[in-house]
This record gives sequence, structure tokens and C-alpha cells, in this order.
Amino acid sequence: MRWVLGLEYRGTAFAGWQRQPQVDTLQARLEAAIETIAGQFSTVHAAGRTDRGVHASMQVVHFDTEVHRLEQAWVRGVNSHLPDDMAVLWARPVEAPFHARFSAMRRRYRYFLYSHPVRPGLLATRVGWLHHKLSLQSMQEAASCLLGEHDFSAFRSSECQAKSPIKHLQQLSLHTHDAPGRQGELIELRFTANAFLHHMVRNMVGALVHVGTGRAPVSWMADLLASRDRSKGAPMFAAEGLYLAGVEYPEVYQLPTWHDEGRLFW
Amino acid sequence: MRWVLGLEYRGTAFAGWQRQPQVDTLQARLEAAIETIAGQFSTVHAAGRTDRGVHASMQVVHFDTEVHRLEQAWVRGVNSHLPDDMAVLWARPVEAPFHARFSAMRRRYRYFLYSHPVRPGLLATRVGWLHHKLSLQSMQEAASCLLGEHDFSAFRSSECQAKSPIKHLQQLSLHTHDAPGRQGELIELRFTANAFLHHMVRNMVGALVHVGTGRAPVSWMADLLASRDRSKGAPMFAAEGLYLAGVEYPEVYQLPTWHDEGRLFW
Repeated sequence: MRWVLGLEYRGTAFAGWQRQPQVDTLQARLEAAIETIAGQFSTVHAAGRTDRGVHASMQVVHFDTEVHRLEQAWVRGVNSHLPDDMAVLWARPVEAPFHARFSAMRRRYRYFLYSHPVRPGLLATRVGWLHHKLSLQSMQEAASCLLGEHDFSAFRSSECQAKSPIKHLQQLSLHTHDAPGRQGELIELRFTANAFLHHMVRNMVGALVHVGTGRAPVSWMADLLASRDRSKGAPMFAAEGLYLAGVEYPEVYQLPTWHDEGRLFW
Repeated sequence: MRWVLGLEYRGTAFAGWQRQPQVDTLQARLEAAIETIAGQFSTVHAAGRTDRGVHASMQVVHFDTEVHRLEQAWVRGVNSHLPDDMAVLWARPVEAPFHARFSAMRRRYRYFLYSHPVRPGLLATRVGWLHHKLSLQSMQEAASCLLGEHDFSAFRSSECQAKSPIKHLQQLSLHTHDAPGRQGELIELRFTANAFLHHMVRNMVGALVHVGTGRAPVSWMADLLASRDRSKGAPMFAAEGLYLAGVEYPEVYQLPTWHDEGRLFW
């Protein structure tokens, strides 16, 4: 039987999603917890293999197992064997053609930028911090030229294994989270695309910050995109502010992975 | 010269505020960072000595030093020697009768309760979690009888060193933080009093949850308060959801420790 799990985690304490020898990874932790419940090992396949330090409010995984367990065993049972900073949110049985990675039609990421002269203490490891002030208007203008189907090589890591650098960026919007007297301190960037290249979001955040601080004019962003040259870009921004926040699948699977924004998460 | 610092921290990784041999404490970390900047040791005095696992969005401390440093040295300089999950927010010079603990007129605590069938992953160590649903109306009614000046012995830890169990509770209010489709999942309780007994807030949260889950009727709260007997109360609730969030001083000191709610903190 094939099961799908919705998962949330803080990536801070892990060496990223993907299982590797000698280091503590989210995939290995989840596989170990499932093995404890099932009594047999199953490989887990994730919608997105998040990097070291990247978080998820909605990661989606699937695995196959021959053992029969109730839904609650895959949620509360597995959770009782996971570290505190990982939790299975729900479990659903699903038909076999479904694949957490290959069936995904769209992904959503959220990036939280904290702009303040003093570094965060309570929000440390959960936001990307910079001590400069940002021009949101410049960032919004620069963001608009990235929308649509483009060759995103200028935002692609040299280690990226995607077959094509052409992706369709459907949303790149800025939102501010204001507390009284704290205008513009916490900025959320929402990214939606059919798929993302490796480091694409963090490289885009770096370039948008470059514009937001005035180090480059708004028009630079279109030139950068057209150059398809990563070396012309700005430094990649920190993993700490990045959250995988949704994955869309064909409606036939009826999974709460997209319209559900995930739980309140900070 | 006497300096006052505003401080925020996650208490998770520390054995509480107060310096003790052999364990990692917030006070010892701050004193070590100040010593590095000043070149001499100063004892730090805090408004509230928070317990293991308790956080602060606004802790206030003072220390005396003979060395002259600019304000920025006590903020960015000290921060560069503190762990990531502690940060000095600001520094102000102050006249000598001021004392972070003894000059304080009021304290404010916030407690975040997360009510959900599945334990948190992203919010782990930052909220008190329970898998029951809560009746907010019952909790609000029970809370109202605690307001005012009372003998709070029924909510006092056996290790409490306060001279008197009589305190004036000026605010105990409930607030919900709703995300779409997530009504009532995240509940904030705000407590303001001239001073608090040891474990008073966490014991009150435990008693309010006892009422909110229906294990005790609303009227039980007044009986519990009148009994002045801790053994008649509910189990103390987790440290994880508790934040020291403000300290009020006489206006003459002009400190941003009360009307400023601290920075956005999750």
C-alpha cells in the first residue's frame, strides 16, 4: 500500500532532507521512525529535497509498505519516534501512480526576511536577517520581471541536476508583517512555480535584497535574468528564512497539500 | 556607570536565567559577553529570573562598570559574543538608584497554548501543547475571579522565596491567533501583575486548562484561590509556552520596557 504524509519541520538541526552516511538527515529520521512502526524498512520519497537549514510547513512524502496500519499509526505513532522539531501532520492512503515528487504540479516556498539593525534572538535560525533597510517598492518592481516562463540559469546552483533551466514562476509576491511601531521589519516573499532549480529561491532573494538595499537598480534584475549567468548575480541568501510551504497534485488525489497553508508556524 | 539592557532570548538551550556552577545559564553567558567587551567582570541583575525553558521577548537587566563604552558596544559588541538565541536589543545609561529587579513596578508575561490533535514540529519548544479542545469561554470566566489583589498561595511553588504571597493581578486576558481554518488552535494568555510568585503563571495556566478541558467547573477556580493550597491545584503547565514580555519602571527612567511590546517574536 502507498501512503502519503504531510510533514512539518525545522531544518536547523539537520544536514538537509536527503539521507547521507554519517550525518543526521530528515529523510533518515523519518525512515527510521516508519521502520519502527511498520517493522520493515521503506524508502521515503519527498516532493522537495530541502537543503541544510531549510524548514517546511508542508513537506509531502510517500512510501510503500506491505503492513497494514491505521492512519493514526502513521501520524501519532511515527511522531512518537521523531525528534521534537519534526512532525507528521496527516496520513492518507493513495493509489500507486502517485509519486510525491513526480506527480507534483506546483510548489510554493515562503521566505521570511528580517530587516533590523540588531540581529534576532528569538527568531534566530527562522528568518534571513539583514541590518539594512529595504525599499519594498523597488523589490516589488524587480520581482515582476521574473514572473512567467523563463530560463532561470542566472539563479541556478552549479550543482543543480534539473534537466532544464526553464521553469514557470507563477507568483512572486511581497507581504509585510507589521507589529505596532515595527513597520517593514518582517517581510515575507512567496514563490510559486511548477518547479524550482537548486538554490533558485535563495538566489532570487539575494538578488531582490541587492535591489532593495539600492546596491543595484531595478532594471538590473531583467538584465541578470537575460544573462543566464549565475556569476553576474548577488550572493545567495541564508537558508534560515526559507520554508517549503505547499505542493500541488492533481485533484484526483484529494490531498490537503496546497489549499491548506499548513499550520500556524511561528 | 550603570547600564540597562533590553534582552530577548529562547530559553530552550539553557538551564534557566540564574548563574549556577557546571551548567549553561543565560546570566553567565551575558556576563561573559560583557566581560569580553569591558575587560572586567560585572554582575548582571535581571528583572525576572526565568526558569529553564522559559523565553523572553523583553528581559531587562542592569550592571555597573567603570569602563566607558559607546551604547553600540553594549548592543552589537555584546551580541557578537552571545549565542545565536540571545540578543541585546538596546542599551541605556541610567542613574544609580535604578535596579532592574527592585525598581520594577509591574511585569507582563505571555503564555502561548497550542491546542491541536497532533503535536507541533515547527512550534516545538515555543508553545505549550495539548491535544484537547479548550472552552475559551469557561477559561475566560475562570480567569476573571483571579483578577485583583489576592493571596496566591494556591499557585505558588514550594521553592518560592517571595516575602509575601499577596500579589496584585491586574490583567489576565485570553487572545486567539487564528489562521484560516485554524480557529482556536493558538491561544495567548496575557498576565500582568506587580510581581509574580515562583511558578505562578504556569500553575495558573495549568488550572485554566483544567477548566478549559472540562475537568473542573468554572466555580472551582475561586475555591482553589480561596484554599491557598497548592496541592488542590492542577499540574503546572510546560515552561515552553512562557515568555517574559515586559517590565514597567518609574517614568523618570524613560525605558522602552513596557509600552514597547518587544520585537515580533515568532
